[in-house]
Amino acid sequence: MTTIKKLLVANRGEIALRVMRTCREMGIKTVAIYSEADRNALHVRYADEAVCVGPAASAESYLKGDVIIDVCKRLGVDAIHPGYGFLSENARFSQMVKDAGLIFVGPSPESIEVMGSKLAAKAAVATYNIPMVPGTPSAIADREEAKVISAKIGYPVLIKASAGGGGKGMRVVENEAEFDEQMDRAVSEALSAFGDGSVFIEKYVTSPRHIEIQILGDQHGNIIHLFERECSVQRRHQKVVEEAPSAILTPEIRAEMGRCAVDVARACGYYGAGTVEFIVDDQLNFYFLEMNTRLQVEHPVTEQITGIDLVKQMIYIAEGKPLTIQQDDLQIKGHAVEVRVYAEDPANNFLPDVGTLETYVRPQGNGVRVDDGFEQGMEIPIYYDPMIAKLITYGADREEAIQKMIRAIDEYQITGLQTTLPFCRFVMEHDAFRSANFDTRFVSLYFSPDVLKPVVDQDEEELAAVLGAFLLDTQKPAQEATATTTQPRSRWKEKRLS
Amino acid sequence: MTTIKKLLVANRGEIALRVMRTCREMGIKTVAIYSEADRNALHVRYADEAVCVGPAASAESYLKGDVIIDVCKRLGVDAIHPGYGFLSENARFSQMVKDAGLIFVGPSPESIEVMGSKLAAKAAVATYNIPMVPGTPSAIADREEAKVISAKIGYPVLIKASAGGGGKGMRVVENEAEFDEQMDRAVSEALSAFGDGSVFIEKYVTSPRHIEIQILGDQHGNIIHLFERECSVQRRHQKVVEEAPSAILTPEIRAEMGRCAVDVARACGYYGAGTVEFIVDDQLNFYFLEMNTRLQVEHPVTEQITGIDLVKQMIYIAEGKPLTIQQDDLQIKGHAVEVRVYAEDPANNFLPDVGTLETYVRPQGNGVRVDDGFEQGMEIPIYYDPMIAKLITYGADREEAIQKMIRAIDEYQITGLQTTLPFCRFVMEHDAFRSANFDTRFVSLYFSPDVLKPVVDQDEEELAAVLGAFLLDTQKPAQEATATTTQPRSRWKEKRLS
Repeated sequence: MTTIKKLLVANRGEIALRVMRTCREMGIKTVAIYSEADRNALHVRYADEAVCVGPAASAESYLKGDVIIDVCKRLGVDAIHPGYGFLSENARFSQMVKDAGLIFVGPSPESIEVMGSKLAAKAAVATYNIPMVPGTPSAIADREEAKVISAKIGYPVLIKASAGGGGKGMRVVENEAEFDEQMDRAVSEALSAFGDGSVFIEKYVTSPRHIEIQILGDQHGNIIHLFERECSVQRRHQKVVEEAPSAILTPEIRAEMGRCAVDVARACGYYGAGTVEFIVDDQLNFYFLEMNTRLQVEHPVTEQITGIDLVKQMIYIAEGKPLTIQQDDLQIKGHAVEVRVYAEDPANNFLPDVGTLETYVRPQGNGVRVDDGFEQGMEIPIYYDPMIAKLITYGADREEAIQKMIRAIDEYQITGLQTTLPFCRFVMEHDAFRSANFDTRFVSLYFSPDVLKPVVDQDEEELAAVLGAFLLDTQKPAQEATATTTQPRSRWKEKRLS
Repeated sequence: MTTIKKLLVANRGEIALRVMRTCREMGIKTVAIYSEADRNALHVRYADEAVCVGPAASAESYLKGDVIIDVCKRLGVDAIHPGYGFLSENARFSQMVKDAGLIFVGPSPESIEVMGSKLAAKAAVATYNIPMVPGTPSAIADREEAKVISAKIGYPVLIKASAGGGGKGMRVVENEAEFDEQMDRAVSEALSAFGDGSVFIEKYVTSPRHIEIQILGDQHGNIIHLFERECSVQRRHQKVVEEAPSAILTPEIRAEMGRCAVDVARACGYYGAGTVEFIVDDQLNFYFLEMNTRLQVEHPVTEQITGIDLVKQMIYIAEGKPLTIQQDDLQIKGHAVEVRVYAEDPANNFLPDVGTLETYVRPQGNGVRVDDGFEQGMEIPIYYDPMIAKLITYGADREEAIQKMIRAIDEYQITGLQTTLPFCRFVMEHDAFRSANFDTRFVSLYFSPDVLKPVVDQDEEELAAVLGAFLLDTQKPAQEATATTTQPRSRWKEKRLS
């Protein structure tokens, strides 16, 4: 067991700040790294020390593992927190960190390696009772065999080119009558695209929901789960809205998924914070997808419903401390929702709209948390992910958390660039989301730019009329000094949307 | 049962915003009132409508009950939330509101009336088993009788002039040998100050702590308590630091105080949110002090540990809805601390230091909540309480909440005026506070201006030296583009303190 005294965050933006805040609370000195494009970034200002590690391009700065390790040696850093993205799931980097005598705040290189490969992960968990999407264990080429397997799995099934990727050579087969035709197409596509006609068959999960379990494991073999996050609202396979808990899990299924997630972690000797992702169908059958061996973007919703600071736990674990939280100590309290606020224009196919935050005023108050890396006047650089902020709200129940989210979105004042806030508001107000009756197809099913209503709505026109009448009324000689202002709420909102 | 559609907040600053945020979440339109001095205030901008009710002086604006009720009638307002201070505990105003056919978001005029008078409150709770500070039920003049009573109560006792106030005619008597002398002094002081020599005798509570219980009652006779807040850190009887739960209560005493508080509320037919205040001695004996018939400044710490939005509950109760929360549903989750950030100079006897918020950057992140009514560039007006903000932090336990508070204080950037933040930081770091071994004498026992250390401390000087060496080191031809910045943390802090 050791004590981390100085920690370098090998990341930028909101997650670098997020990690440093907890470090400061723990009395740990912080070192920021930055690219030339991030010279004036908040994470640079917040850290105790900051070192420029190269030009804007990530490959020449944030991904330069050797440079980063060198900085650690020179500044007497004990530990590296990788955040998410960049080097966070790079087994080679974590090995280099270890070899340099530094602490990697994350799992072992071996765990990262195993869970980084779908096949290796599958093999690792094989001895545990982890539900997988039913399918062929290996590639097949024989059509009749494929048909027998499909009948056993049950339609609809998915035919996937063994060498495939990007949807090429992938076919959904609704029933046996369609099988031959779709198989032919898949094989011919696969052959022409990859020169390899062999395919996998697997069950096609209808109305799939993405639900993941947060894990914490120490270096002494103790592993607990911190319940689930539902991340089914996605755009092009990117999560855009997350919540905890999921509105659809029963306590029994939650416990069962938790047990499976702990087993997946155990199967790869996992320690640190990690996330086991599942796909869940409309009958609440769940299947293991993959494990992310790092802190997730959406970790705050778990922090809000459990009261556990995940970064603090990661640091304790990295120091070799045993977990002090038992599974039975944990319970879900309330409900939390997170939306990702991007510098993208939802009215224009979500094209990045980087630029300067001319106005930037965060929402505040009871049940609102904003994790970001910018201040008014700063620029969102074009070189990196255009996420401006994560807006998190929490309430006594799901409805309250959503109401707080809508209020917070309306309060957020951002001008100078377009953001996904109107899109997030659309999701919050949509019946499918409100009733928790949605899946990963939410965006493609319901969203188009013309659903983005102007925010200055009829209500406010009515209000203006009423106020107009009132103003007329006060033109009469009055006994008291009363007067009305113009309607401030519309001003507030216009600011955000202009 | 009715539905509130439009609510006027008869208040200003942070509490007006606090109430309006919840209204917006509930879909209730809001009306702000403001004095001429508050024309540009945030609560005015946030509201759906805003009306100027008079000049800066409270007596001519925020306290003008008739004007406020008139505004409600003209704008079609259903309900008035009084916040705290101003008209919030004015029974006559709440009666006027009722008579005007409006809803007062608070208790009945009768409850306010009864609890507004110490004697009436005492009489009201007489049939319940509520512990009171032992003492004479009425004023006495007879010295021998006083001595007999004092012996029965047990020394030390307090002799208090019946007509007294402001500490005049108040004497602590440590033992019977001192009695005659102190009684003589008290009576003669009382005679010369008030022309009335009669006195009360009551037990002198040593090491007194101020602990209060949050109450919610509906209009159907259901009353619950939401545990305690400890507010023992006070300056001149003003709370400056609050926390929930108290670090010293046992579950048994907590339950017993909760029961008493519910009984006090029941004794006056209470509905709405209210607070029953107790004084607690070093043996954990507790005595009823008084009931505050309104929302308290420090209510957020209770919201954080229970997950209940108190303003939302107040509105539901005012609408006539029965409470949906049962006592057994409630549990304490984590720990919350609040400090009050005033525009006062702790190095100069806490003299108000109003002026312009030249820099105003709030702390952020996990476990931090800021309730305020200002933005950068705004002025703190001289006409009202100089509170800038309430800074609230919460963590899994008391230590974590305090660590988060220190981090948040360090992150708070305020320039243009002096604030009590350095004082708050002093409290957070003091052994007596850290060990929870303190009472209402904390400030007078431990604080003097020279305990306020400069925040740029030795650590940073050392750091500067180290960095200096590093900079020299990097002057050697280097293979990578690395460089250090100056230490950003000290810049961050200097900003706050300059």
